[in-house]
Amino acid sequence: MLFATMLVFVMQAGFLCLESGLVRSKNSINVAAKNMTDFAVSSLIFWAVGFAMMFGESASGIIGTSYFFFGDDASPLLITTFLFQMMFCGTAATLVSGAVAERMSYLGYVIVTITITLFIYPIIGHWAWAGIIVGSPIGWLELIGFVDFAGATVVHSVGGWVALAAVLVIGPRIGRYDADGKKIPGSNVPMAVLGTMLIWFGWFGFNGGSTLGWSETIPAILLNTCIAAFFGAITTTIIKYFVDGYIDVIQLINGAIGGLVAITANCHAVSVTDSALIGLVAGVIIVNGVRWLDHYKIDDVVGVIPVHLFAGIWGTLAVALFADPVALGTGLSTIEQLKSQFIGIAVIGFYSFVTSYIILRLVNHFYSLRVTEKAELMGLNFAEHQVSTELFDLLSAMSNQQQASDYTVRVPVEPFTEVG
Amino acid sequence: MLFATMLVFVMQAGFLCLESGLVRSKNSINVAAKNMTDFAVSSLIFWAVGFAMMFGESASGIIGTSYFFFGDDASPLLITTFLFQMMFCGTAATLVSGAVAERMSYLGYVIVTITITLFIYPIIGHWAWAGIIVGSPIGWLELIGFVDFAGATVVHSVGGWVALAAVLVIGPRIGRYDADGKKIPGSNVPMAVLGTMLIWFGWFGFNGGSTLGWSETIPAILLNTCIAAFFGAITTTIIKYFVDGYIDVIQLINGAIGGLVAITANCHAVSVTDSALIGLVAGVIIVNGVRWLDHYKIDDVVGVIPVHLFAGIWGTLAVALFADPVALGTGLSTIEQLKSQFIGIAVIGFYSFVTSYIILRLVNHFYSLRVTEKAELMGLNFAEHQVSTELFDLLSAMSNQQQASDYTVRVPVEPFTEVG
Amino acid sequence: MLFATMLVFVMQAGFLCLESGLVRSKNSINVAAKNMTDFAVSSLIFWAVGFAMMFGESASGIIGTSYFFFGDDASPLLITTFLFQMMFCGTAATLVSGAVAERMSYLGYVIVTITITLFIYPIIGHWAWAGIIVGSPIGWLELIGFVDFAGATVVHSVGGWVALAAVLVIGPRIGRYDADGKKIPGSNVPMAVLGTMLIWFGWFGFNGGSTLGWSETIPAILLNTCIAAFFGAITTTIIKYFVDGYIDVIQLINGAIGGLVAITANCHAVSVTDSALIGLVAGVIIVNGVRWLDHYKIDDVVGVIPVHLFAGIWGTLAVALFADPVALGTGLSTIEQLKSQFIGIAVIGFYSFVTSYIILRLVNHFYSLRVTEKAELMGLNFAEHQVSTELFDLLSAMSNQQQASDYTVRVPVEPFTEVG
Repeated sequence: MLFATMLVFVMQAGFLCLESGLVRSKNSINVAAKNMTDFAVSSLIFWAVGFAMMFGESASGIIGTSYFFFGDDASPLLITTFLFQMMFCGTAATLVSGAVAERMSYLGYVIVTITITLFIYPIIGHWAWAGIIVGSPIGWLELIGFVDFAGATVVHSVGGWVALAAVLVIGPRIGRYDADGKKIPGSNVPMAVLGTMLIWFGWFGFNGGSTLGWSETIPAILLNTCIAAFFGAITTTIIKYFVDGYIDVIQLINGAIGGLVAITANCHAVSVTDSALIGLVAGVIIVNGVRWLDHYKIDDVVGVIPVHLFAGIWGTLAVALFADPVALGTGLSTIEQLKSQFIGIAVIGFYSFVTSYIILRLVNHFYSLRVTEKAELMGLNFAEHQVSTELFDLLSAMSNQQQASDYTVRVPVEPFTEVG
Repeated sequence: MLFATMLVFVMQAGFLCLESGLVRSKNSINVAAKNMTDFAVSSLIFWAVGFAMMFGESASGIIGTSYFFFGDDASPLLITTFLFQMMFCGTAATLVSGAVAERMSYLGYVIVTITITLFIYPIIGHWAWAGIIVGSPIGWLELIGFVDFAGATVVHSVGGWVALAAVLVIGPRIGRYDADGKKIPGSNVPMAVLGTMLIWFGWFGFNGGSTLGWSETIPAILLNTCIAAFFGAITTTIIKYFVDGYIDVIQLINGAIGGLVAITANCHAVSVTDSALIGLVAGVIIVNGVRWLDHYKIDDVVGVIPVHLFAGIWGTLAVALFADPVALGTGLSTIEQLKSQFIGIAVIGFYSFVTSYIILRLVNHFYSLRVTEKAELMGLNFAEHQVSTELFDLLSAMSNQQQASDYTVRVPVEPFTEVG
Repeated sequence: MLFATMLVFVMQAGFLCLESGLVRSKNSINVAAKNMTDFAVSSLIFWAVGFAMMFGESASGIIGTSYFFFGDDASPLLITTFLFQMMFCGTAATLVSGAVAERMSYLGYVIVTITITLFIYPIIGHWAWAGIIVGSPIGWLELIGFVDFAGATVVHSVGGWVALAAVLVIGPRIGRYDADGKKIPGSNVPMAVLGTMLIWFGWFGFNGGSTLGWSETIPAILLNTCIAAFFGAITTTIIKYFVDGYIDVIQLINGAIGGLVAITANCHAVSVTDSALIGLVAGVIIVNGVRWLDHYKIDDVVGVIPVHLFAGIWGTLAVALFADPVALGTGLSTIEQLKSQFIGIAVIGFYSFVTSYIILRLVNHFYSLRVTEKAELMGLNFAEHQVSTELFDLLSAMSNQQQASDYTVRVPVEPFTEVG
């Protein structure tokens, strides 16, 4: 489990690469800084109160009430569990930065991180997972048979819902939905692909470690995890190729991650062919999800909402549709299981979205979560961190020079006229 | 072994960094996309039929015939073995992308991946390794005493042979062997060095995991692995320094990876001083191999052929020259062992090269594996994926502007004349 | 422990990313090459003589005298210990490259690596750690009760002292302390942040593995490690924000790594709240340390001295201030322990700094460790490796063109005059 914990840690590095590779170079440093910051902030909150709210002694299955400022007197096993869960909390938090990139301020983003780690993740986590330490259901969603093995809903969809709330509050980037509708390209796509591989690597710990100890099922879990990712990646790529006529690398990435998200809820209890189908459907959902968001002008920079929210919902429903009832151990029929899954998805979604939307809207009223237009155009690397990439310096110099150069182009024409 | 499997997975990320760092920025995204795609495609083929052909019930030691669409009813150990072997297959496949970079089309590359994973790797893999699951030799090369511990020939040389066939079919990049003979520099060498370290990290799993379970020999295997890499790296660097007068970073990288390739065949059965010598000779071979390829105008972008094919051949021969006969357990004399090694290298080489050359030549007749000249000059990032790095955009803008600017330089001169 | 060894290996990749991301693009390849080279050179020296000097049979607790050219007859456990220690040695060596970047020559840097691995690290390592293999103190510093669990002083401060000696010998970069005092920005900060995460990942092995086997204390060690890093990162960030009004990403990175350094000495014996305090104080020290170095015009490119030396000293003192005496097992009172820690820090510091300063000064007299001014301005990528990043090519082209363009700007003005 410690090993799995470290793998999940690598997902932080992966999201850092993915997100800073997919934003423009003028914002890449800002995104990287946000990724590292949210990990520190969310982990400290989780240490202080989050773990207590999530896994402490339960008040009616709603919220935990012990283990505050977790630590010294804990058993090695409990510390291990804490570290593993701390990484999960950090994953949920870090997802959001990709969606709100290029326009949310650093401090605004810290507020988002606090919102998710203090008011949302540990509470819904208690509902769905409070019993994993003692080994029998405690949280009210667990008790009605809601199953989300490694957190397609609890981690990924929650991050997605908060991302959705945040982008609705702050609005799209300047120029994103202009008349010409040009896509804004990433600055370093190879780094984003590297990030995807690191995220995938981390996912071996995410899914494999969620057995909370060595288990005979781990090899099958990892096989299912990979198969879903392969099918997700290939599905999005093929669809985009037939629709738009080219290989879309961003969709290739999104498909792989989306396949991973979808299989997260059910990888312990489905067959390998089911995994293929789950990944495939996730791919279809993602391509359409991206299109749907663009239709409604919801500007999600790296595709957090389709990949983590939509694919997470699908994966959580897939538990009821595909999973082996014996492995689930809930004793529910398919329809009953589907109902439990639906309740879990809806309640967690409603709570996450509404809570974060209200908090962020309120905060935004007093302190703008969005940077100024000037800062956005200048890029957050410089506006917030007083650093810039050499590339961006160059682009600016170029731009100035192009104007100057245009001027000189016009000037020589005028002499002729004048001379003429 | 699961841990080793995950380490080998990291090699995919490593090759991605290495290759996208060593191509020009106009092709970096294309290479990254190919790396991720070949992993998905090769793994799915290996799942569907490759594992069956490689490890299924043997038909006369030539090909396996069971375990198609591997999966659900398998034991945890068998699934683990499958995952480990799936990563190996992915490694063999991904090597090729570095050689054919910057000019082979994405779909052409998918055909190469299918060729290697469907027609070559599992078949030669059966010859050399079919017995590892049951623990006694089954494949015909195993039966004659051919030893290739972790795949210097089975994985690396096979990738190298297919790379050679592919570059012969598609030819060198435009301008690579022009009169001025300028080397084409990589776009992001630090990323390539990072890739090398990630590949090395993965190699701990590649060699360490090839004991197929915990073994007392693993520490010695890892020590030998590192020593060979050190000597490879230092040898190439020193040779280049004395011949050309500067420290060649690409050769430093190539030397390290070549040392790793060479030790792969024999790391379980050689001493640490042997490892040093094996790495050193690999370094010498690589420097000369690169020169030899350039002499024959065989354009291998990142040096796949010298590093993986030539060093792989050397390492496989080194089994007979250095390995402890007891550890090998073949009961052959040095000369007999050398003969077996030679047969294995020759037959696998012949089969891999000829099969891939014929298939790719044939396909190329009907569907060009190479992109158009226009696409090659434009860069595959844009031509195939409609994305570009900001840097490339800038380079293009620069180039246009330079023309414009030259124009303005000339223009002002003309007025004088005219005025004159 | 093998697993921990591999994690520490990843720190090499992490420092590579960190350092090549924080230098200017004209030097990024050079730094990456140095990082890989020092790993090979230091490991080979450690294999040949270092391990023997550090862990061999002790001559009066001063130096070891057996295990030269370590290898073949060793037990698996001893080989494992060797590999783990080899990675530690490589870490101490690789730290220096960040401080001397952008102006020390490649061969000069190899001399620094040889100095640290041959004359410094194994000797002070023997003083402090010689007994870890047999399990009872042997080295003279161990015998007086000096405790440095995973090497805050033995590894990190030693690297920091040598870095300090080296930068004093070679002096600051051209233009670093000019009148305008402009900071020299890094070329790829997101890569540096990735490097930080990889270093952090490696640190799990660095601290977790220093129990030299599985131990019930490992979860608590990892928890302490993370908590100190979080507090280090947040402290530096907050201080810089209140002092300078912006979020300084470099300080965020430095704070995290500094927290990791400080906790390294004591993570096995302090509580989680102690860890928080240790990280916090490390953060304060680092911010002031950076300022202090700049005040004295000591040009340490990536902050090696404050992060590894100053925080290392603090962490080693913190052993006496915070650690549980029972866990330490030295039987000393707090004051006695503080005295032992102080002696260890002072003697190791004095020996490391003086030895390296004398050697480097002497060498510098006969062979300049610093590149020529022309090479420094041109960038070491090209000057030493005959490669350049496309970005740097472009910057140069820009610069030339800007001059040309300025010319054309002036030219059109002149015609008017002339025409006039």
